[in-house]
Amino acid sequence: MTALSTTGRTRLGRNPDRGRSDRSVLYEILDAGLICHLGLIVDGSPRVLPTGYGRLGDTLYVHGSTGASSLMAGPSQDVCVTVTHLDGIVIARSLFHHSVNYRSAVIFGTPRSLTDPDEKLAGIRAITERLAPGQWDVARLPTRKELAATSVLAIPLEEASVKIRQGPPSDDDEDYALDLWAGVLPVHQTFGAPSPDPALRPGIAVPGHISHRVTS
Amino acid sequence: MTALSTTGRTRLGRNPDRGRSDRSVLYEILDAGLICHLGLIVDGSPRVLPTGYGRLGDTLYVHGSTGASSLMAGPSQDVCVTVTHLDGIVIARSLFHHSVNYRSAVIFGTPRSLTDPDEKLAGIRAITERLAPGQWDVARLPTRKELAATSVLAIPLEEASVKIRQGPPSDDDEDYALDLWAGVLPVHQTFGAPSPDPALRPGIAVPGHISHRVTS
Repeated sequence: MTALSTTGRTRLGRNPDRGRSDRSVLYEILDAGLICHLGLIVDGSPRVLPTGYGRLGDTLYVHGSTGASSLMAGPSQDVCVTVTHLDGIVIARSLFHHSVNYRSAVIFGTPRSLTDPDEKLAGIRAITERLAPGQWDVARLPTRKELAATSVLAIPLEEASVKIRQGPPSDDDEDYALDLWAGVLPVHQTFGAPSPDPALRPGIAVPGHISHRVTS
Repeated sequence: MTALSTTGRTRLGRNPDRGRSDRSVLYEILDAGLICHLGLIVDGSPRVLPTGYGRLGDTLYVHGSTGASSLMAGPSQDVCVTVTHLDGIVIARSLFHHSVNYRSAVIFGTPRSLTDPDEKLAGIRAITERLAPGQWDVARLPTRKELAATSVLAIPLEEASVKIRQGPPSDDDEDYALDLWAGVLPVHQTFGAPSPDPALRPGIAVPGHISHRVTS
């Protein structure tokens, strides 16, 4: 795999040691997330919207209603897609060195709006598999009309800033003598027990591909 | 409290039933979050960066290094700050109706860069209390030099789009007859056992304001 090249937008000014140029790290971060924050310019001002996404090879997919202004504004102008994992709260001895442990990918690109039905379906499948893996094989597939009502944007994974901070706090030398606790409070994303639809037909058990995701 | 007024940027095109104009709901969403996604325009393209934030009354604070291009670009131009809670994955009978349960706040405004040391300190305190409540009372406070190295932006909470989706899937009438499980897989953010700094001086226990946050 080719490494990620640095551009003016992805060059890290601060904490360059947190940067990663391995494409495999970008993919790991993307493949561990559930939602992204899509940034675009609408009428001259920035807009940041949470939305689902998926990845196939070196392409990122996001989708929305064809009526959503967010996606209408997307094609032919640059967007930014950010996926963030908050892994811990870093408790330092000084307030100044409090921080967070995280993995983040900030992706820049000009999206292409998909028109080919097969590619569109593949993009929707990638997005579905990210949020609800296994559902594509069991749920009722999109109709032609549903497909037409869905916009899918493809963004090339070419320009991205990948950052990771892990580990304990980094305090000033003289502060290590203070009588204060310091360390990391880990943050996790977990899945609870599935809550059945009240309209669920009787006798239908939670399928394994959903129940095995439950954390506790 | 005054309700949030609707502008061109905050009018909901899709699913208007998910919108909330109560200011108290906006505050609840902000006060339950740990990080935001800050959107701004840098050299003509959108940029979305994860960062800490805090709220005091009807003002939102975000901070960064004075050297960070993100905050340099901030003052005098509009920014968008989005806080999202992913609460569940909505498993429907049709792929088209798969969705997520969430609470989100999308805030628009022109930030003011703080120069008054007292207001700056109050802003940093609000941000600290969001991520690490209780630490302000025990940790070593910022020095004059550390304060000078920190940029704090204040954004008025005047223009915001607040959306909530909760509850079971909403399938098409004919799909309820399908022999498929449907419901919600809840998503939680939890805190694990605190991990002490390897450089921690012996005999310092995890303080109560940190240990009481542990979920499991």
